[in-house]
Amino acid sequence: MDLQYFPLPGAEIDEIDTPAIVIDLDVAEANILHLQAFGDAHGTAIRPHSKTHKSPVFARKQIEAGAIGICCAKVGEAEAMVAGGVKNILIPNQIVGATKIARLIALASEANIVVAVDDPDNVRQLSAAATRAGKEIGVIVEVNVGMNRCGTEPGEDTTALARVITDAPGLRFDGVMGYEGHTVAVRDEAERRANAGVAMSKLLEAVDNIEAAGMPVAVVSAAGSGTYNITGEMDRITDLQCGSYIFMDGDYMEVFDDFKPALTVLATVISRPTSDRAVLDTGMKAMSIDRGLPLVVGCPGAEFVKISEEHGIMAVEGEAQRLKVGDKVHLRPMHGDTTINLHTHYFGVRNGHLDSVIEIAGRGRFR
Amino acid sequence: MDLQYFPLPGAEIDEIDTPAIVIDLDVAEANILHLQAFGDAHGTAIRPHSKTHKSPVFARKQIEAGAIGICCAKVGEAEAMVAGGVKNILIPNQIVGATKIARLIALASEANIVVAVDDPDNVRQLSAAATRAGKEIGVIVEVNVGMNRCGTEPGEDTTALARVITDAPGLRFDGVMGYEGHTVAVRDEAERRANAGVAMSKLLEAVDNIEAAGMPVAVVSAAGSGTYNITGEMDRITDLQCGSYIFMDGDYMEVFDDFKPALTVLATVISRPTSDRAVLDTGMKAMSIDRGLPLVVGCPGAEFVKISEEHGIMAVEGEAQRLKVGDKVHLRPMHGDTTINLHTHYFGVRNGHLDSVIEIAGRGRFR
Repeated sequence: MDLQYFPLPGAEIDEIDTPAIVIDLDVAEANILHLQAFGDAHGTAIRPHSKTHKSPVFARKQIEAGAIGICCAKVGEAEAMVAGGVKNILIPNQIVGATKIARLIALASEANIVVAVDDPDNVRQLSAAATRAGKEIGVIVEVNVGMNRCGTEPGEDTTALARVITDAPGLRFDGVMGYEGHTVAVRDEAERRANAGVAMSKLLEAVDNIEAAGMPVAVVSAAGSGTYNITGEMDRITDLQCGSYIFMDGDYMEVFDDFKPALTVLATVISRPTSDRAVLDTGMKAMSIDRGLPLVVGCPGAEFVKISEEHGIMAVEGEAQRLKVGDKVHLRPMHGDTTINLHTHYFGVRNGHLDSVIEIAGRGRFR
Repeated sequence: MDLQYFPLPGAEIDEIDTPAIVIDLDVAEANILHLQAFGDAHGTAIRPHSKTHKSPVFARKQIEAGAIGICCAKVGEAEAMVAGGVKNILIPNQIVGATKIARLIALASEANIVVAVDDPDNVRQLSAAATRAGKEIGVIVEVNVGMNRCGTEPGEDTTALARVITDAPGLRFDGVMGYEGHTVAVRDEAERRANAGVAMSKLLEAVDNIEAAGMPVAVVSAAGSGTYNITGEMDRITDLQCGSYIFMDGDYMEVFDDFKPALTVLATVISRPTSDRAVLDTGMKAMSIDRGLPLVVGCPGAEFVKISEEHGIMAVEGEAQRLKVGDKVHLRPMHGDTTINLHTHYFGVRNGHLDSVIEIAGRGRFR
């Protein structure tokens, strides 16, 4: 709708109208290379999660750097990635219902599709749909490694489900996954390491049981950005599903700084009603607050103190009191993934100038 | 996208794929009529805020019921409404920056445009752009009535700004507005009434001052859904900007039940890992949590206890333990406006069947 008003490549950052997500492309690319280098050094494949960037442009950068494919949270996200040229997709979630399963199977004409399961009826539905369509998809069992969301327990249930998959026509039993999401943001590194170790021992127990039952386990997929260097060092882990590392969240920066922050939301001051208050045009419809209010970047004396749907309120003191209506400010949201989902485009910059506008093609693809 | 998978009118609600916003159209239409009847009885015009529904389809229902026009939070939202046939737009926010002002003035070819201001430089920029384009737009002063967000204080500053507008070519001084947003969700009615009274006395003080200075005040616009029957009874208030009343938020239902809830998010059970846990396919990317976790509707024994990006976790007991993978559940989000902004379409239902799919054309139009 407002595409025609986007500035041309080469424009100053402040020429970008707001609210807008600004990505420092050099930083994002360095993050991609840093994770890939870790994986290469440890013999662990990288399979980044596209739920963060939701853009085939960034997915292709990850694959060009060496990633074996990407993860997608939903079928709709996978459709956006396949349409953008990605050929190897893992959906580390359960895909339920006839409509979504039909869409999933349809994607197998264009890409290698692997999906997670934790329920035998779901396996039978996937098998029936794949068989009917004359396709084959890969299936992995999601094991509950302590996050207590989805997933089977690592004992007999997991082995039995692997057997159901192995025996199901149209399906290829590829292995297992476990997401140690309850450990990725633990602030203390030793504690994070210990907790992730406990979680991964459950996943590896499942692997041992399945292989003891005579089924080879090719894929053992796990990890978030906060455990990349813990889970990624373990012998049997085949690939890492990190997502947020590409841009780094404000929240994650409190855990570690192995990756650098690449994302800000550019906002405009729209009101200066008092000397100590500046109001921005950026509220909850352009920036998520599920992990807290954003940080104000590069504007000493300004603090983001309150948010409503379309407004952000900053308390300003000292130097920041010079802010006037029309001035622009960079905000770092605590949670990139949910903020990105609110936007249609990234404004990619290098060295302070607009490099390219990148569509967030997977935005809102939650079905 | 997944448009091709939407069910046809007449389908059962459970045939709608999830996550999906389901609107009971009879209830929404009754809410529209209820507010309009109140306005008609009290001689107060209704100017509903489209930030809630973000759809010209619902805006036209409001106008057909008698509303004098609608409010839009941003220029992008106004563009969507004008494109959908709405001819009378009030933007009760500051529009700042050359790009947005140019877009705002362009809309004046197709609709009557009124915008709020609280800064004399902003007035001069609006005037210059309107004059250059040979257009006229209406301008109102936003008065701070105690919410302490944007707005001038009701004394000399407000009167001086009214004078700047009156003297500015290309602009028509239409009046004032004040949003008593800090009072709309006060639980106790007597307290809500007292607080709204204090807030509106500031707005009316501004009106008196401006008129004493010889400038007629045609528009005195205010109110949210929670104060419709308080502010709406006051003599000098000309119109009410209520938004949420059309669907009612889970949160607002704790304040009063003058309007009935019309909106739920339909979700699917994707995992039943334990007898007391059911996992839904609906997380923060399909439902906002800025006012708390959603309520589970019509499923006794189920409580929504945890949310992540793409998952919702319910604790289930008793009858709800019968839920199985593939079953559908209705959720009532605490905050409709921020939830609607995550979706591309409404699924409008009547008597348990799909009536029509309605595009959320203003979704994400935050520039």
